[in-house]
Amino acid sequence: MLQLEVQSPEMRTPQATKTAVMVIGGAEDKVHGREILHTFFCRSGSSDAHIAVIPSASREPAITGGRYLSIFGEMGAKQIELLDIREREQCKAAETLACLETCTGVFLTGGDQLRLCAVLADTPAMQMIRQRVKRGHLTLAGTSAGAAVMGHHMIAGGGSGESPNRSLVDLAVGLGIIPEVIVDQHFQNRNRMARLISAIAAHPDRLGIGIDEDTCAMLEGNALLQVVGKGTVTIIDPGEVSYTNQSQVEAIAPLSVHNLRLHILSHGDRYHLQHRTVLAPTHQLPS
Amino acid sequence: MLQLEVQSPEMRTPQATKTAVMVIGGAEDKVHGREILHTFFCRSGSSDAHIAVIPSASREPAITGGRYLSIFGEMGAKQIELLDIREREQCKAAETLACLETCTGVFLTGGDQLRLCAVLADTPAMQMIRQRVKRGHLTLAGTSAGAAVMGHHMIAGGGSGESPNRSLVDLAVGLGIIPEVIVDQHFQNRNRMARLISAIAAHPDRLGIGIDEDTCAMLEGNALLQVVGKGTVTIIDPGEVSYTNQSQVEAIAPLSVHNLRLHILSHGDRYHLQHRTVLAPTHQLPS
Repeated sequence: MLQLEVQSPEMRTPQATKTAVMVIGGAEDKVHGREILHTFFCRSGSSDAHIAVIPSASREPAITGGRYLSIFGEMGAKQIELLDIREREQCKAAETLACLETCTGVFLTGGDQLRLCAVLADTPAMQMIRQRVKRGHLTLAGTSAGAAVMGHHMIAGGGSGESPNRSLVDLAVGLGIIPEVIVDQHFQNRNRMARLISAIAAHPDRLGIGIDEDTCAMLEGNALLQVVGKGTVTIIDPGEVSYTNQSQVEAIAPLSVHNLRLHILSHGDRYHLQHRTVLAPTHQLPS
Repeated sequence: MLQLEVQSPEMRTPQATKTAVMVIGGAEDKVHGREILHTFFCRSGSSDAHIAVIPSASREPAITGGRYLSIFGEMGAKQIELLDIREREQCKAAETLACLETCTGVFLTGGDQLRLCAVLADTPAMQMIRQRVKRGHLTLAGTSAGAAVMGHHMIAGGGSGESPNRSLVDLAVGLGIIPEVIVDQHFQNRNRMARLISAIAAHPDRLGIGIDEDTCAMLEGNALLQVVGKGTVTIIDPGEVSYTNQSQVEAIAPLSVHNLRLHILSHGDRYHLQHRTVLAPTHQLPS
């Protein structure tokens, strides 16, 4: 796609725009208020936004990606690109890196988180996304599978309707954008509390974040998490855990996990990821 | 049923027997190890036990009750009675009260907790059960609906697969044997975490106790809760909650509840209900 304006090798979002990492629980509103997608559009620079959609998690990348292209186009983004990455080789191609070096927003669609990681992990493309996110030059959003990959540890699959137990969750390695968290998505909608607790029991140095559908945990500056959307974000904090039998019992045995801290957060709630505290409630979010 | 031995107007369990209130999450093993039902049998006096089964929650009280009669008979209880109470008037009948005055164990079956409360609440029969439990003269067990009624507030119904919200749970008044708790049963099996959180958000002076199938929260001396069985007991303690929007939002709005304490307890774990602390783990339970 032709660059209309080339200012510098590395573009960045307009100075007034605060970039963010947006972890979306899936099934975000694509038709009516589009609150979460519009927030992504704004955080990518609004009418100055240059958005790259990466549909690599999806089995139908053109269809899945195309839908987001239309939405961000309707919103008035300046430039939109589909980065239809299906092979790891594409992650070092010059045109891919040129796009990722200049875009102001990257959107990871849903699909299969294992496929997404298989294609993107440990590639120059991922390295560029990570660095630009860290510098605050790029807003990164992921929905469903695109959300699952955000932690170092990733939930690849699992079940529900059982007592928490080690075999209830399949863990893999994610993309590590927010390494200290383990994300679960479609969270209350698919009754995933037991599997997230099982994951956190196995990795009590991490923080469990369960995100409902049409809900976003939006992280600013590597520390401040805000909730946007229709459902809840569940935080499972094992920082004070006094005992777990996790390493002592067989995989299907029910777990003991004593003294977890649990927060149910809804729209407007803010949580400090480093301090592990909920901030005093406010209904006035900075835009 | 003829009393073979009449010692005093009020029988009590043998001195060596520690009575308990056994809150069972439903679907307890009735065929193989029968661990929970055998614990009830022992806590009712073993071969000296005089057990009354109250099947009032069930639509088929004779069948439901009969099954438990057979089981406790096979175990060797001295005397077993079916208290087939279908009307409130039966709760003041002399033969009902005579049974409840002398028995050493009462078992409440599953069914519909609203029906059970409608028949038993605020009756002389219930008054006698409550007093004798309090004095430690009687072991009381309830499974499923029989467990749901244990608190002052009772979950009468509700849903799953949604963000916690007020409309997710229907609350009624229970029998108040352990007034400070709100019990939910078939807990992880039916994905009821969100509805128990919703109930606790409405009553943050109570303690949420979610009990999985074939699992029992056994309370001794009004304070010490022990877990018996195959699944987990989930404790949701709102004692440190710093904020909830529960009273401010409409019924279907997602809830905020900050700073809940969450314990996942498995077989052998012990929790002090008054101190609201988990005791140091032990795998040696007092018998």
